[in-house]
Amino acid sequence: MSLEEVYTPFLSSRVAARKLMSFWDKTTPASVKPHPQPIDLGAGMPNEGLFPIESVHLNVVDHPFQHTEYKFRSSRLHRDASSGAASSDTVVAADGSPRNERELVSQKFQNGSIVDMWRYEPENPGAIPIYTGFQYSNTRGLDPMLDFCYKFVEYANPPSYKDWDITFANGSSDSLFKVFETLADASVTVLVEEFSFSPTISNITATGAVPIPIKVSVTGDPEEQGIDVEFLSNLLENWSESQYSHLSKPRLLYTIPTGQNPTGMTLSLEKRKQIYALAETHNFLIVEDDPYGYLRFPTYDPENPSYNPYQAGEYTVDQYRKEVLSTSFLSLDTSGRVIRCETFSKVFFPGLRFSFIVGNKFLISKILDFGDVSTRAASGVSQMMVNNVIQKWAPNFTSPQEAWLSWVMKVASQYTHRRNILYEALQATDAFKDGLFTMVPVTAGMFAALQIRFEKFPNIKDHAQAMQQLFYILIEEGVKVVLGVNMAVCKKFSSERSHFMRVTYAHAASDEEMQEAAKRLSKGILRLLATSSAA
Amino acid sequence: MSLEEVYTPFLSSRVAARKLMSFWDKTTPASVKPHPQPIDLGAGMPNEGLFPIESVHLNVVDHPFQHTEYKFRSSRLHRDASSGAASSDTVVAADGSPRNERELVSQKFQNGSIVDMWRYEPENPGAIPIYTGFQYSNTRGLDPMLDFCYKFVEYANPPSYKDWDITFANGSSDSLFKVFETLADASVTVLVEEFSFSPTISNITATGAVPIPIKVSVTGDPEEQGIDVEFLSNLLENWSESQYSHLSKPRLLYTIPTGQNPTGMTLSLEKRKQIYALAETHNFLIVEDDPYGYLRFPTYDPENPSYNPYQAGEYTVDQYRKEVLSTSFLSLDTSGRVIRCETFSKVFFPGLRFSFIVGNKFLISKILDFGDVSTRAASGVSQMMVNNVIQKWAPNFTSPQEAWLSWVMKVASQYTHRRNILYEALQATDAFKDGLFTMVPVTAGMFAALQIRFEKFPNIKDHAQAMQQLFYILIEEGVKVVLGVNMAVCKKFSSERSHFMRVTYAHAASDEEMQEAAKRLSKGILRLLATSSAA
Repeated sequence: MSLEEVYTPFLSSRVAARKLMSFWDKTTPASVKPHPQPIDLGAGMPNEGLFPIESVHLNVVDHPFQHTEYKFRSSRLHRDASSGAASSDTVVAADGSPRNERELVSQKFQNGSIVDMWRYEPENPGAIPIYTGFQYSNTRGLDPMLDFCYKFVEYANPPSYKDWDITFANGSSDSLFKVFETLADASVTVLVEEFSFSPTISNITATGAVPIPIKVSVTGDPEEQGIDVEFLSNLLENWSESQYSHLSKPRLLYTIPTGQNPTGMTLSLEKRKQIYALAETHNFLIVEDDPYGYLRFPTYDPENPSYNPYQAGEYTVDQYRKEVLSTSFLSLDTSGRVIRCETFSKVFFPGLRFSFIVGNKFLISKILDFGDVSTRAASGVSQMMVNNVIQKWAPNFTSPQEAWLSWVMKVASQYTHRRNILYEALQATDAFKDGLFTMVPVTAGMFAALQIRFEKFPNIKDHAQAMQQLFYILIEEGVKVVLGVNMAVCKKFSSERSHFMRVTYAHAASDEEMQEAAKRLSKGILRLLATSSAA
Repeated sequence: MSLEEVYTPFLSSRVAARKLMSFWDKTTPASVKPHPQPIDLGAGMPNEGLFPIESVHLNVVDHPFQHTEYKFRSSRLHRDASSGAASSDTVVAADGSPRNERELVSQKFQNGSIVDMWRYEPENPGAIPIYTGFQYSNTRGLDPMLDFCYKFVEYANPPSYKDWDITFANGSSDSLFKVFETLADASVTVLVEEFSFSPTISNITATGAVPIPIKVSVTGDPEEQGIDVEFLSNLLENWSESQYSHLSKPRLLYTIPTGQNPTGMTLSLEKRKQIYALAETHNFLIVEDDPYGYLRFPTYDPENPSYNPYQAGEYTVDQYRKEVLSTSFLSLDTSGRVIRCETFSKVFFPGLRFSFIVGNKFLISKILDFGDVSTRAASGVSQMMVNNVIQKWAPNFTSPQEAWLSWVMKVASQYTHRRNILYEALQATDAFKDGLFTMVPVTAGMFAALQIRFEKFPNIKDHAQAMQQLFYILIEEGVKVVLGVNMAVCKKFSSERSHFMRVTYAHAASDEEMQEAAKRLSKGILRLLATSSAA
């Protein structure tokens, strides 16, 4: 018998529902001849040049306890280290003489090979000592990093109620998994933007819950972008008459409100208020997934294609924080029904697998209980890396939070530049000039939706098939994209709105690469036209 | 209404079962006066002096793309980097000139601030480039680290069948969570050593499964140590007549076979064979949790208290591997029914949150599917840290696996020394000389069980109450321990075998600290005797 035959009876009842819904098109017909040097506008990975750390140097010991000053460290310090705070108690050293720990700690870190950021200094209580970051810690997170995040939430996205809390997780995927495992099961219906990040849809279905699509407007009008509030309102008002009447009324809304993936749409403040009001009326919770929220920029201006307010020095950190950033649902939340998921993946780097969840104290305590019996703490190495880099920057700013946001602005500036370069290059193409496609204006994030204007393709009847055909043509032309339809919660529901592809300017190696990609996109779209005309 | 009242209705049906079972005694009566400078023999944390990295130095850039040679990096490299392997394809640089990637990569890493271990070199394909470790990766893990682990399993614990596989996880707690979520639900019964690591019992109960205790022998006889095989065999043979007849026949056995926590017991090879035979007969899977397996040492010898075969240079790496290490259930496994969980927490450091799971290809694929919809990959920073440190050591050995094991032996040597120091100190105490307690001989791991010999306490009838009383006395005397009863799967079942406390020599700051702890333990036990005699 095969392993599968023998061991399938041992699988738990929940295994069947656990399967990643991938938006990658894995099967390419043999007839398609891939380009030898494809350019990837598909993968939503930040360019490595956006990572704040260029190199890492480790001092490796040859044998245990070779560490500088090690013998002077005391168990008292070990224990206090777990809170990132040092004790000033007198302790007894190996030779029996009493020593003051402050002195010992600084002695220890006078080792030249250790740079400031890894030093424990009384005047910099925000830093996490290396032994703390390397040691076991509690599930919630290391205190200095937690303290930073609490203050950062108050600074950037202050909730409108008091009893909120935070816990860390191992990246947004883990955050969302924990949130949905805590709030969803087979009896639950979850509202999701009709096009969304497929792995999160898998997180939802893995709990047994049913995700149902909400119509979204993929448009340039900043007031109209994103969730169709009227559609949502009507659906909820008339639930029992809807096609979903056999399902329980939605208890959760999952949304990526800013720089939505894959549409690039950003919800206006007015829409956020309306959606929050609906949540209050129909009593559902809002799960706000905001990995791209800090990557804001103005709408692309063909008259001034290289306009970059960051480079132009038009934003102070406070302006950016108060006027440029979108208002989080958290800041509209007065009753504790919003759960916000933030991650350091896009603004520090993804390899950290480090994120945090903000919500009301009660729900966070339940998510924390789940963490206690599953992953436990996020990597202490990752927590220490982020925390201590921010603490290294902090002295030049009024607060560590401002220091962090000013780095984030530098990253946002790069995204502004890259969006500008790609849009300018796309506008210069023949296919664009012929009106065969449009770029939906985006004001945040890593993604743009390129919509094919099928009214210009008179001979094409089956748009879905044509999009798939275009996808293969682009593989031959050498540019990788993601088809919107592959990120649809329900292909049938979204069929009329699936005539777009997701492209990202996040990962390209250079401006030149994006310019070359634009040419290839145009060539591919013109080929689609030619093929269809020939037909 | 309170948050709890408002939001409890939103909780999923699975939340209730998710609560960490802690073995810490949190409530101390006001009458107990804690010692001002307690020594902690309770916390199972490795001493930070055992961590192979003394310091970390990060080069932080001031702004994105400031990175050395960055402009030469191509998307082709990005893609190949994800496998840790470089491409030798010619790529186009920013200035349009063709460049060879090998040259670019070495150019890039000729930056003096990057030490060898972080360099990508063709002659060292095992190293993970920094950009790969910092970037998104697949759930299973980064290829160079996976490759190391595959070969390490073949080297140290080779399975006896072909179709086995590996996946990484975020520390053993996460490994075990994923294993039990994949194999257990409310219909499943899990066999567990009667005293075990409480958080894992929480992992089991969180799935809805029922853990039931197996009698263990806490004794010095190496052939008798651990799971009582006769008890287990009888239980399985007569399941329908047992007190558990209302439960399904066990589908899983969870065991910590070497240096068991909390008893310190190690299963003999003969017992392992008998248990594996029972697994074949009664068709259950064996979940082998082996965080301590590499920390082997000889039984303590009062005649030669400081005997340390590692320091004496008596073991070559091959002898250690072939003769000193216990045989993993994996190496007895011919049918793919063993799932082995390994972690780098005890032999590298816990803050990594990095572990791996070995099992048959089918079950690993299901665990991987679960990872895809939950945590995704383990921290790339952690994976890179472990991988590149091992690769740095590798050139001095016949293989990276040998290099790693020779570091592990240095750690095991320290545990041998610490076990010797604590046991020698305990033997020198009055309480030991008076025969009031014994140390159960251990040959592996971080823990020792100290058994109170209640036959020497004639006035004590209630042993459970006396152990609790002793625990409080020891808080006053200034030594923290863990009561065995607090790690019992079922207190009632184990009441006659709960007259021990778990102490660890893993975390003490120094030999002196352990010697002082031994004195305090003795003093506390003598106080218990005096109190009971007075009564």
